[in-house]
This record gives sequence, structure tokens and C-alpha cells, in this order.
Amino acid sequence: MANTEGSKLWGGRFVGDTDPIMEKFNASIAYDQRMWDADIRGSKAYVKALEKAKLVSTEEMEQILNGMDQIHGEWSKGAFVIKAGDEDIHTANERRLKELIGAPAGKLHTGRSRNDQVVTDMRLWLRDAITTLTNDTLQLISTMVERAAAEIEVLFPGYTHMQRAQPIRWSHWILSHAVALRRDVERLLEIKKRVNVLPLGSGAIAGTPFDIDRELLQKELAFDGISLNSMDATGQRDFVVEFLFWASLCLTHLSKMAEDLMLYSTKEFSFIALSDAYSTGSSLMPQKKNADSLELIRSKAGRVFGLFYLFLISCCLVITRQEDKEAMFDCYDTVQAVLQVTTGVMSTLKINQSVMEAALSPDMLATDLAYFLVRKGVPFREAHGISGKAVFTAESKNIALNQLTAEDLSAVSPLFGSDVSSVWDYRSSVEQYSAPGGTAKTSITAQVEHLRTWLKKQAQ
Amino acid sequence: MANTEGSKLWGGRFVGDTDPIMEKFNASIAYDQRMWDADIRGSKAYVKALEKAKLVSTEEMEQILNGMDQIHGEWSKGAFVIKAGDEDIHTANERRLKELIGAPAGKLHTGRSRNDQVVTDMRLWLRDAITTLTNDTLQLISTMVERAAAEIEVLFPGYTHMQRAQPIRWSHWILSHAVALRRDVERLLEIKKRVNVLPLGSGAIAGTPFDIDRELLQKELAFDGISLNSMDATGQRDFVVEFLFWASLCLTHLSKMAEDLMLYSTKEFSFIALSDAYSTGSSLMPQKKNADSLELIRSKAGRVFGLFYLFLISCCLVITRQEDKEAMFDCYDTVQAVLQVTTGVMSTLKINQSVMEAALSPDMLATDLAYFLVRKGVPFREAHGISGKAVFTAESKNIALNQLTAEDLSAVSPLFGSDVSSVWDYRSSVEQYSAPGGTAKTSITAQVEHLRTWLKKQAQ
Amino acid sequence: MANTEGSKLWGGRFVGDTDPIMEKFNASIAYDQRMWDADIRGSKAYVKALEKAKLVSTEEMEQILNGMDQIHGEWSKGAFVIKAGDEDIHTANERRLKELIGAPAGKLHTGRSRNDQVVTDMRLWLRDAITTLTNDTLQLISTMVERAAAEIEVLFPGYTHMQRAQPIRWSHWILSHAVALRRDVERLLEIKKRVNVLPLGSGAIAGTPFDIDRELLQKELAFDGISLNSMDATGQRDFVVEFLFWASLCLTHLSKMAEDLMLYSTKEFSFIALSDAYSTGSSLMPQKKNADSLELIRSKAGRVFGLFYLFLISCCLVITRQEDKEAMFDCYDTVQAVLQVTTGVMSTLKINQSVMEAALSPDMLATDLAYFLVRKGVPFREAHGISGKAVFTAESKNIALNQLTAEDLSAVSPLFGSDVSSVWDYRSSVEQYSAPGGTAKTSITAQVEHLRTWLKKQAQ
Amino acid sequence: MANTEGSKLWGGRFVGDTDPIMEKFNASIAYDQRMWDADIRGSKAYVKALEKAKLVSTEEMEQILNGMDQIHGEWSKGAFVIKAGDEDIHTANERRLKELIGAPAGKLHTGRSRNDQVVTDMRLWLRDAITTLTNDTLQLISTMVERAAAEIEVLFPGYTHMQRAQPIRWSHWILSHAVALRRDVERLLEIKKRVNVLPLGSGAIAGTPFDIDRELLQKELAFDGISLNSMDATGQRDFVVEFLFWASLCLTHLSKMAEDLMLYSTKEFSFIALSDAYSTGSSLMPQKKNADSLELIRSKAGRVFGLFYLFLISCCLVITRQEDKEAMFDCYDTVQAVLQVTTGVMSTLKINQSVMEAALSPDMLATDLAYFLVRKGVPFREAHGISGKAVFTAESKNIALNQLTAEDLSAVSPLFGSDVSSVWDYRSSVEQYSAPGGTAKTSITAQVEHLRTWLKKQAQ
Repeated sequence: MANTEGSKLWGGRFVGDTDPIMEKFNASIAYDQRMWDADIRGSKAYVKALEKAKLVSTEEMEQILNGMDQIHGEWSKGAFVIKAGDEDIHTANERRLKELIGAPAGKLHTGRSRNDQVVTDMRLWLRDAITTLTNDTLQLISTMVERAAAEIEVLFPGYTHMQRAQPIRWSHWILSHAVALRRDVERLLEIKKRVNVLPLGSGAIAGTPFDIDRELLQKELAFDGISLNSMDATGQRDFVVEFLFWASLCLTHLSKMAEDLMLYSTKEFSFIALSDAYSTGSSLMPQKKNADSLELIRSKAGRVFGLFYLFLISCCLVITRQEDKEAMFDCYDTVQAVLQVTTGVMSTLKINQSVMEAALSPDMLATDLAYFLVRKGVPFREAHGISGKAVFTAESKNIALNQLTAEDLSAVSPLFGSDVSSVWDYRSSVEQYSAPGGTAKTSITAQVEHLRTWLKKQAQ
Repeated sequence: MANTEGSKLWGGRFVGDTDPIMEKFNASIAYDQRMWDADIRGSKAYVKALEKAKLVSTEEMEQILNGMDQIHGEWSKGAFVIKAGDEDIHTANERRLKELIGAPAGKLHTGRSRNDQVVTDMRLWLRDAITTLTNDTLQLISTMVERAAAEIEVLFPGYTHMQRAQPIRWSHWILSHAVALRRDVERLLEIKKRVNVLPLGSGAIAGTPFDIDRELLQKELAFDGISLNSMDATGQRDFVVEFLFWASLCLTHLSKMAEDLMLYSTKEFSFIALSDAYSTGSSLMPQKKNADSLELIRSKAGRVFGLFYLFLISCCLVITRQEDKEAMFDCYDTVQAVLQVTTGVMSTLKINQSVMEAALSPDMLATDLAYFLVRKGVPFREAHGISGKAVFTAESKNIALNQLTAEDLSAVSPLFGSDVSSVWDYRSSVEQYSAPGGTAKTSITAQVEHLRTWLKKQAQ
Repeated sequence: MANTEGSKLWGGRFVGDTDPIMEKFNASIAYDQRMWDADIRGSKAYVKALEKAKLVSTEEMEQILNGMDQIHGEWSKGAFVIKAGDEDIHTANERRLKELIGAPAGKLHTGRSRNDQVVTDMRLWLRDAITTLTNDTLQLISTMVERAAAEIEVLFPGYTHMQRAQPIRWSHWILSHAVALRRDVERLLEIKKRVNVLPLGSGAIAGTPFDIDRELLQKELAFDGISLNSMDATGQRDFVVEFLFWASLCLTHLSKMAEDLMLYSTKEFSFIALSDAYSTGSSLMPQKKNADSLELIRSKAGRVFGLFYLFLISCCLVITRQEDKEAMFDCYDTVQAVLQVTTGVMSTLKINQSVMEAALSPDMLATDLAYFLVRKGVPFREAHGISGKAVFTAESKNIALNQLTAEDLSAVSPLFGSDVSSVWDYRSSVEQYSAPGGTAKTSITAQVEHLRTWLKKQAQ
Repeated sequence: MANTEGSKLWGGRFVGDTDPIMEKFNASIAYDQRMWDADIRGSKAYVKALEKAKLVSTEEMEQILNGMDQIHGEWSKGAFVIKAGDEDIHTANERRLKELIGAPAGKLHTGRSRNDQVVTDMRLWLRDAITTLTNDTLQLISTMVERAAAEIEVLFPGYTHMQRAQPIRWSHWILSHAVALRRDVERLLEIKKRVNVLPLGSGAIAGTPFDIDRELLQKELAFDGISLNSMDATGQRDFVVEFLFWASLCLTHLSKMAEDLMLYSTKEFSFIALSDAYSTGSSLMPQKKNADSLELIRSKAGRVFGLFYLFLISCCLVITRQEDKEAMFDCYDTVQAVLQVTTGVMSTLKINQSVMEAALSPDMLATDLAYFLVRKGVPFREAHGISGKAVFTAESKNIALNQLTAEDLSAVSPLFGSDVSSVWDYRSSVEQYSAPGGTAKTSITAQVEHLRTWLKKQAQ
């Protein structure tokens, strides 16, 4: 019994042995040790509040602070030794503290519960993780914006339903993904606000029974606010759910972009070529060069959805100590890697401008043909029907739309005169779309400038 | 062929017949007709921009505006007749407009695509839906806060892992759920900002080729901003995904609350009784009174998760016209009903104060017993171990913790004197937790006041 | 109170009113009425067991049987009138029976509960639904097998990771999807076994207290077995979960096939053209012909996943009367429609053989080049490296692999002689793969014959 | 370039460097090394087929076989050293083979691709894993059946919707979960059939171009069948999806059982007490004894759902090398641990018979009261209404149902005579349910015997 007493936090009571499988599941040290720094920061702040409440003496506080700094040093140098019985990072740090400073270590947990300690550590850790991800996303957006600026002259087909729709600028496609990522950054900053709330001082569920100054804790740990209700503070994991959702939606964006790029990198499209750093080969086929990086981006969306989903269900069933932390860590690692790979892909891929522009075909100007008539006063619905007939005639004759003769066209509508030939120019087609958000050069330039300004603001 | 030409928007081209199953899937009028008002508002704004761009004359604009008002009247009175061929609300309204005003109707779609039209309608509709849900959630929070204020004197066991943990106020439990709902309101308002962005003027993907004044459109439709990139504006459904996530997280909160209430309403707990309005019986067992309303709340979380996931996956696969709208409508209906049922349940349930307080047991004061020693200078870890031994002794003797004799206790620790009897009072135990967020009366009152102030601000 | 007594099954007890939202949620008649036939069959069998147990007289049994036949007639003719208070199909049929035959109708529910009645109806309904889906899947497989047989001479590129990998037969691709569907049929038949188990006679949870002959019920209703435990029989919905999983996996297969076809139908690939019956146009772009049917197939996978997950979670939370039935019905409708559309697509699409074969390129024979060396005794790993160098040389010179001169090749390996030219033939390349499952003509023919034999067996 | 050539399977072509993040994602050795035994078995069989096809000499075959045995020995003893560049278990084993036997090692991969090699290894591994899980599930069922047999005399309330419904035997509850697990075993055996199919000899996608005798491979590796189509064989992961679904459904069953047990182990119910081996304490509250094992079981359902879902989506997006294996391994580990913990919980928990029986209350016999009237010829619907009125009368008088006087009862119905007192006996109530599946002693005994016989058959 003595050893049980020594090795478990709840001491003094249990007489039976624990099933080793249970031990294994309850031990979270393997993954939660990455919160070692957050745990030390939390304890250092807490002991100051204990001292203010006269629950430890100033001297004891100093001992604990010094001990914690020493533990910090051990972790930093990779010298911290995890021992059997260290079931989580909190136990491990406190056990080490006791070894270093003896008795006063036993006072550190006064009025604190593992419940509020764990959630404080998680919030501190996630706050930093969010900062990193924000920067990674901004880096990617910046790469995309500069690429869009540099390659603004390149036209290619805009697709809907994987079918050629209208001629657009390649930069227009890039920016369509950049603005989605911009929203991701906005969402992440909103979430950060809610992550950065102090739960410490909530105890297990009822609160803290001592004069713990929660405003002092908030200040020490640079939290934006203090949790309103202790049961909510210790029981809720909304902040994790929100983060996982953020990751899922962000990866949806990257996945869609990767899907387009996979298409563009097929032999049949040949619009782009990935750099070798983002491709791999085959063990059987010497000629293969697979767009593995793009597949990876797509598949990681599925991974993050699974992690998110796992945790969302857990919130309705039971949250155990493994699920919330593993999901948070794995999502972070995954999204960070995907953001970096995507940045790498986007900064190194080569475009094949001549192939891209050769893929533009006259049938993509059928809408312009209708607009030609609209400009002559034909109601759009009627013009659309007439243009459709011209397309049908060209298909019947098995020729391109712009190869229809003057006779062919005037048979469809007498309004088609020789001036119709002005329609068959891709560059002037694109230049029509000059309203905000459109694909004309001025409009693309405005989008680039808008994003550059916004990026500069974020960097401040 | 003539009839195909007449009945489909894309006119003039198709020669084959469409598989009737395809027709059925493509027809969205059955569910998207609920956006009739948004569609009319969008078209009325759009025709003003067409007039400014000189694509319709002032007279034509007036005709279209009047026609649209007439259609509005028909929908309002339930007199609008859907005809075969009205595949969606947009087609239906335009078809009716043509019947009413003839030729000018054919000009309304100039430079507009179904792509930007649909997403404009969805955003207008969802903006209003969000307002309704915000009010419903505020109503529920208000009900909960007032109940918490009224029943502040009632104590009962706080549970963790379904086991009695510490004595708390019943109001503390209520407020722990109220503050989660408060965050839901905050999230909803953030989402609204991103929903309320004008996509009209984005065409299919490339933008609009005419002088459509998008700022005029924004003003007419009271949007907060204008979409930055036309491909993103027509292709993205982030705003729907965000809304569905919001609904999922909100229902997680309501589901957890319902789970607790189900437990409290079992015969074995008997803490609460639902009103008959929120219970149903059994076809076989005459005595049964089931907490159907609570089961309903819980099960609807599953429904909304399913809808949300369905759509999140669709965003990575393909979004067709059915999935985004059905998910949005169904989620809205479900959440709204659940919010109303929960408000009903929370305003009509009866609590059984004597049973609740009788459920408090001396072992729940074991932490207080440890704190008793802490106050005498014993380090918490040691005090926790001593208190655990007292619990073990009481269990061995099969008596309650507070029935241990002075001898029993001093055998465990000499620091236990006669003054230990002060520990065995639930009310004074609860009053210790007076730090912000705790379960002491002052702390609960502060939470109530905080929420009342916040509610007042929202109402402005 | 009188009217409450009349309109609710549990009669005589409730004094409060029910919240109308609750009424709405509890009313399942809108969707469960499609089980009307199963409900009547179940009741007809049950009354025979009641008569055998002497709980109704022979005369009463006849009255009930005749009444049920009359109700059957009403439903068949669309003449059954649902009345206010008919909250589900079971209540509706019994209410109507009472109108038709009076007092004896009140005896029909003796020893039966809505719990075992509902699940019996669901199992009867699903058994029939499974038969339909089995036939629809067999029809699709048959279409695919015959197409594979007819177009066996067509070669085209086999892709992995969307990159050209090896030359294969078009039929090989078709059959790769057909064999996945074959496994779906096998799974469906296994599930049917577990669906087709009689729960009737399980009461609410404890069983039936009367001499109800469950073997008689089994025989009357043609079930394959009898449920073993009454709590399990009424509480479990495994059979629904299994069916929803089946639908999800089947749609995964159809979705992957549709994904390939979408790629093949892009302008850039141009391998296939969908018939007009499975395409739609654009409201803006007259030339557009979208592969809507393929998008539909893909998106419906997401829908079914959502329904499945919704229900899987419900199984861990709470199953209410809406979720299990709606999920089952919606999945059935969706899968059936998708199977039919896929059959339509596969029987009407046109292939473009010359384009498909023109897409074969010499680099796809790089593995064959390695095999050429293997046949001369070079270990494969070495041969693979040599072939890789040849590919690299060709790429450096910007020529096709088969345009390398004898000098180029012998510089890479002296084993390349003039006989290497035999490698550059796509048809003989394909014919190498004659082991079972391969893409050689004999192997494809064997696959076709295997499936034809299997299909014949299923039809028996 | 030299080192690239040495360290990557596809040798000889790449000139750029790979992004280290890509390397990390592509390296699967960290998790796929647990398939080392399957990989060796697969290669040993394959070299025999190569020898038969004269692609290696008999002597080379012997060298390879001996080398593989040596590698097997190294893994068994934990002596195998993974080196940088060993990106997966397949590369690692082949690299080691080359070190041990030199040149002939380069012939082992002839006609084989990593595609068919990986999926062969996965199928071999999963086949063994399924055997283990089958045995673990049978062990659990056996524990439950014997407990049900031993405690057959114990009555307690059967619950629906968490409300007391009817008196049942405790064994009836146990068996209701056992029969669900029995179906899980049946499903697992069906899946095993489809897992145990040989893919080797399918190459990358087109098949194998050499005379590889696939029937020899099948026999050597004890597969039940041979894959029909090589593209399907290498591209499909249905067998993994099926396994993950199995795990999800099985954990649904264990989760529901755990949910009931959590309720029964609350202080308020006090029906059962977990052994200390399956409980843990609190860092703050000395008296707490949490049913952690039960929470664990419930939460692992969420984990497995997430893994399953992740992979199901991947099947529609892209399957990369990480996702399928990690999901398979993690699910296996999780389910196995949960099965063992559940077996531990079920064999060590203690029931509190007197509390269980004291929880039976007269209102639970209201259905029996109705049956009393049915036996006197009253139609059930009417009898149900009368019994409901008796319940209402008792509630109004605030007394138990069996405390109603003869006058009270005859006021409700003149058919209630003094013989009604026979109704108020829980044991005789339970004994009524003697039809197959019911809760009478004979019926429970029959269920126990049925399962014992079935278990014996499985063990053969």
C-alpha cells in the first residue's frame, strides 16, 4: 500500500491494484509533456497568488520559483528525466519540484485542482500555437499575393464543374484562394480572444476557497479575461472545438486549391509542373513523378476532419484526458506542416503559360457573344438563346465558334454583323470584367493592393 | 425541342431528354422557395443597378419593380402558383415576372448569373435567420439567469464523472450553462459579419462585364461589405459551414444540459420534475412519464452534426444545389425548435429542494477536511492524504465521514480537535468559494448581474 | 381532458397540454406512413397469434383481418385519410380499424408495445428495400460487364495519383469498379440475414406475458429467425446502422468512379462524352455542358455519410423516433436514385477511342524498358535504375523516350540492343499482363466470364 | 545525386531535394514496422513464385529465404536496426536483405510493386488481428453469460428513456448486451473472409507481366481467395473501411453498456460498485472514486468513430500511406484495450442486490394491472386507460399504486376485486414473460444455454 500512496496523487485510499491497461490509458505524459513550459509558467504565477493569500511564505515562494526555473532549464536542455509514476506533465513537474526543494512543493497545489491546472496549461499552449499558425498563414498568403502580382499577364480557362467556363487571369485564380485564407486568419484571431481567458482559480468545479487573486493571475499570465463561472471553466472545451473547426475549414481551402493544382499538373492539362522537392517517384515505374505534396494536402483535410469529429462527439459523450489533448496537438502539427508544404509548393511550381493560353477556346466566349447582342439592345434571355443556337450550329458543323461565317451567324440573328469579330479576343474579353472583384487587370491589381495593405497591418 | 427551349434557362441547345431522376434532383423549388422574399429583394436592387448602367430604361426598371412587388404580394398571401418548369425560386420569380410585364423581364438577368444570384439570396436569408436565432438564444439565457437569481438559496451536489463531487448552488449549475450560451451569441454575431457580404456582381466566376455599381447594390441590400474576388464569391460556402458549426456547438451545449436534466429527473435522483407539456407517456405502460423533450434536445445534436458533416465533406467533394440549402434550412429549423423547447423546459420544470439538499453527504466535504488542515499549516498534498485516510476509516467502519469520533480523527492526525465539527456545514462550505466564478452567494450574484447587464446591452 | 384521452395512445393520465413544438417532433406520420403495408402485414400476423393464445376469438380475428384488408385497399388506392391525432402510421391504422370494426380493434395491441411494433415494421420494410437495391446494383454491374466485353479492344492510360502510369484496357478500368460493386452485393445479402429477424413478441422490454407463439409470427411474416433477447430486440438499431454503412461504402465506390469519369469528360482529357440526358447547361454561358450527373453521384456520397454519421452518433446518445426512420428512408431513396443514374450514365456515355489511345505515351513504357533488362538477367532494382536514367536522358533532350537513339540507350546500358524497339508497342505491352486479374485480353475475358456466371447465379 | 540514388526506391531520376516535411510525411516506418512479420512472410512466398517463374535461380531463392529468416530473427529479438533512408518496413527489410546476401536481393521486387506489396502485408496483418479480436470478444461474452447464469435470481428495474419501466432480471440486462456482441462476432467473421484475399501479383495497377503463379502465392500465404482485378486489388481499401466500421459498431455496444453501468454506479442508484482496479480518484477530492474505466469505454467510441470517419472521407478524397495504416492500427489497439477493460469490469464489479430490488416500485406494475383486466376480457386499449386512471388516483392521493383501497380501485373499474392483490408481486410479474426472449427464469436460462452452445462452437 505504501507504494500506491507514494505514486498516485490521490494517495491514502485505494487498496486494490489498477488494471495495467487503465494505467496506460490514464498516463498522458507521452503527449502532454509538450506543455511543459505552459505548466511551469502556470505554476509560477499560481505560487505568487498563494503568497499574496499567505498560503505560502515569501521564502517558500522563492524556493518554488527557483525550483521551477531549474526544471525549466532541464526541459530546455532535454535533461528532464520522466520517471515511472509521472502520469502527466503536471505530476512530473511537481514530483521533480519536490525532489529539488522538498516540503514546500507540497503546498503548490493548495486550492488548485488538476481540472483548472490542465485547462490553464492547454490555453497557454494553444495561444502560442495560434500565433505560429497565424504567421504561417500570413506567409502563405503573402507568397500567393506576390505570385499573383508577378504573373498578372497570364490568362487561362476558369473552370466550373471541371468544365471550361470563362477566360480569366491566372492571378484571379490565385487570389480567389488567398481571400479565403484571409478569412481564416480573421477567424483565428477571433478564436484566440476566447482561448486567452484565465481558468485558474476555478478548482475542481466549485471555485477556490482561498483568497486567490485571479486578477493577479490574469496579469502574470497575460490573459485577456477571467472565466465567469468555475464549472464552465473546468468542464468546457469549446476553445479546443473552435480550434479544430478552424483547422478543418482552413484545410478545406487548401484541399480545394490542391485539387485544382492536381488537375493542372496532369499530363493532359500540363498547366503547371511541381518542383522535384514536392514530387516523388514510383518503386515500379521509373517515369512516374507524382504530385505527392498535393495528395498530402488533400488527405490531411480528411485527417483533421476525423480529429475534429472525434472530439465534437466526445463533447456530447465523455471527454477523457487523452482525446482533447491529442486532437489539439495532432491538428496543430498537421495544419502547420500543410501550411508549410503549401507555401513551398506555391513558391516553387512552374507555370506553362503557352499551354495555359492555348487551352482557351472560342466556345468560352459564347457569353461574350450574347453580351454583344445585349449591347445592341437584345434582352439577355433572348441573347443567351441566340448565342446558344450559334454554339449548336458550330457543333453541328464540327467547327470552332469563331469559324462560323457571316452567313451562319446572320442566319441565327440578323444583328450579327462584321463587327462581331471583335468578340474573339481573349484579352479584351477579360478586360471587360473591371468591376470590383473581377478579372480585369485593374481589378486584379486592386485585389493585390488590398491584400498587401492588409498583410502589412497584420504584421504590426 | 420547342418545349425544352421554353422550359429551361439555358435554352436553345440541348437535343436529348433529361433523365427524370436528374430533373428531380436538379429541381430545388420544393425547398428553396422559402427564399422568395430574399430573391425579390435581390432582383429589385439589381434592376436599379442595371438602370444606372443604362442596361434598362427607367421605365423598364419601374415595370420590373412593380412586377416584383406584385409577386411579393402573391407570395405573402400564399397565392403564388408554382408551375412545372419552375426548377428553383429564381426561375419561378422570373417566369412570373415575364407573365406579368412581358419583354422587359428578359433584361433582368443581364450580367448576372445564377451563381451570384443564389448566393446573394442565401446570404440575405441567413442574415435574417441569424437575427432570429440570436433573439431566441438571448431569451433562453434570460430565462436561465432569472431562474438562477430566484433559486439562489438551493444547494445540491455538483457532479464530476457522474459522481458527487462538491456541494454547490443549483444556480451555479444553471449559470455554467448560461455562460456557454453567451459565447454562442458572441460567435453568432461574428459569423453574421461574414455572412453579410455582397456577392452580387460576381457573375459566374469572372465578374460582371457591365458598369454595375456594386456599392449601390451593397447600400440597397444593407450589406456590411463587398466580396473581394468573384471566383471566391460564387464558389465558396464558408458562411454556410460556419453557421452549421455554430449550430453544432450550440447544440452540444444544450445537449449537455439536457443530459444532466435527464439524470436529475430519474426516479433515483428526483431533483426535478418536467411539466407535462414536455413529457409523454407509453403505449404499453400506463405509469410512464418520459422526459421526451430532453431526449429530443440530445438527439437533435446528432442530427445537426450529421448535417454539418455532410456539408463539410461536400465542400471537399462537390457542392450541389441541394446540399447547401437543405443543410442550412434544416439546421435553422432544428436549432430554433430546440432553443424554444429548452426555454420551455427551463421555465416550467419544478425543482425538489428538499431532495436536492438531502443528496448532499458528508463525504463531499472531504476536501474541506483537507482545507481545515491546510489552514493549520499542513501542506495540501499531506492534508489531502490525511483526509483520504479519514474517508477510508469511515468507509471501513461503514459510517458517514462526520460520524467519526474525536478519537478516530486524532488517530489519523493529531491536528483534528473539537473545532473540526465546523467543517460539517454545507452552507458554510459553499460560502468559502467567493472568488470570481465560485459558488458562494456573492459570487453567484455577481455572475447574475454580469449577465443581466450583458443581456441589456444586446437588446439595444 | 376528454379529448386528450381520445387522441393519445397513453390515455387517462396527462393533465397538462403539450408544447406544440413537441407535438410536431413526436408526429412521425409524415414520413413513417410509407411503412403502411408493413404495419398491416405485422398486425395481421399478430392477430393470428392472439387468436391462437385465445386473447381474441376466431370471429374477432376475422373482423380484424377483414378490417386490415380494407385499410390496405384504402392505402393502395391513395384513399386513406390521415386525421389530426394520427401521430404515426401505427396509430393511424389502428384508429381506422376502430372506425371500421369497433370494439375488437381495442384488442389488437394486447401484449404488444409500440416498441416491438415499430421495429417489426422497419425490418419488414427494409427487407423489401434491400431486395430492390440488390436488383438495382446487379443491373448496374451487368451494364458495366457487358460494356467491358463490347469495348475490350480499347486501350487508354491507367492513372495513379492522377498521373499516367501504365497502358491498360478501358475494360480493365470498368471491371475494377464492377468487382467493388460485386462485394457490395455480397455485403447487402449478409445484412439482409440480420435484418430479417422477428422482434415481434418482445413487448416494451421484458417480453410478452401471454402465450404468443413467436414461431407462428416468424412463419407468417417469413422471417429467417427470432430475436434472442427482448431488450436487445426493441432497443437496438444495428440493422439500420449496418444498412447506412452499406450505403456509404457503396456510394464511395460510385463516387470514385464518377470522379474518374469527370476527369475523363473534361475538355483536356476528352476521353468520354456524357449523353445530354445526364448533362445540364448554364444560365449564363451558352456553351457550357456540365457533367451534373457525375457531380450528383459524388455529392450524394457526402449526403449519405452525413445521414450515417448522424445515426451512428444517435446510437451513442439517444435514438428518437425521427432519426432512425428518416435516415433509413433518405438513404434508401438516395442510393436507389444514384444507382439508377449511374446505370444511365454508364449505358449512354460515348467513348472517344482515338483520343484515348493517343493519350498513351512512350514514357508509360519505362517499366517495360526495365523488364526488357530483367529478361536479360539484370536484377530488377538495377534495371529500374537504368530505365530511370533513360527517362532522365530523354527529358533532358526534350524528346520522347522511344526517340532515344541506339547510342543514347547503350550509353545508359550496353544491354540495350536494336531488339529494344520491340518494347515500344502498347498492345504487346498490355498483353504481357496475362496473370489472373491483369489487363491482357485473356485475363479481361476471364473476368467478364466470371462476373457473368456470378450474375446468373444471383438472378436465380 | 549519388546518395539520392542510394536511398530512394525510385533511384536514378530526381535531381532536386525533397522538402524535409515531405520526407517526414512519406516516412511510414514509425508505424508500419509492426507489419515486419507479414512483410517477411509475403516476400518469402513471393520469391518461391519468382523461382517457379525462373526469374531467380533455386540458389538465389535459398539465399533470399535464409536472409529473410535471419531478418525475422533480428526483429523477434528486437535487434533489427532501422537506418536513415528506411522510409517504410518494405524498404527496410529489402535494404537489410541486400546487406546480408548482396546482389540477389535486387531481384526480389521483380514484377512486384510497392502497391501490391503493401496491401498484401496489410491483409496478412489484419487477418491475425481479427483472430485476436474475435477471441477477446468471445472471452467477454463468455464472462457475461456466466455472470448472467450465476445471478439469475436478481431482479431490478428495466429502464427506458432512463425512467423505470418494468421489473426484469439483472441477467436479462446482461444478456441483452451479450447478444449484441454475438452479432459483432458474426460480422467480424464475415469481414475476415473479405480481408483474406490475395492481392499479390497485381503489380502497380496492370497486373504482373511474368509467369507469377498466383495460386502458389495463395497457398503459401493461406489466403481464401485471389483478387479478381488488379486495379481494384491495389487501389481499394474496402477491407480497412469494413474493419473500422466493425470497430465503431462494436464500441457503440460497449459504450451503451458502459453508459448504463455509469448510471447504476452513481451514489443515487448504487446498484453496482466497480472494483478499485477499474476506478481512480481525484487530485483534489479525497473521497472521490470515479468510474474512469466506464468513461474510457464511452470515450473510445468517439475516438474510433473519428478514425473511421477520417478514413471513409479519405476514400472519397485521396488515401495516402499514413491514413489507412494508422487508422487500422489505432482502431485495433483501442478496441482490444476496450474489450479487455470491459471484461475486467464485468468480472469484478459487485452488485448490491438489496438496493436493486428495493428500487422496484408498484407503479412499475401498472401494465400488469392492465393485463389483469385483459385476462378478464377487457380490450387492452380500455384496460390501459383504466390502469392509467388508477395511477393518476394514486398520484393524486400521494400514495403508492398498491396502497389504493378496494374502494379506490372499484371506483376506477368494477372488475377490480380482492383478487387484484395477486398483481403486486415482482417475482410473479417477471415470471409471466416466458415466451422466447423474455425475462422469465426459463427464458433467461434458455438464452444462457443458447449462448453457451454457440460459444462452444466458436471455440472449435
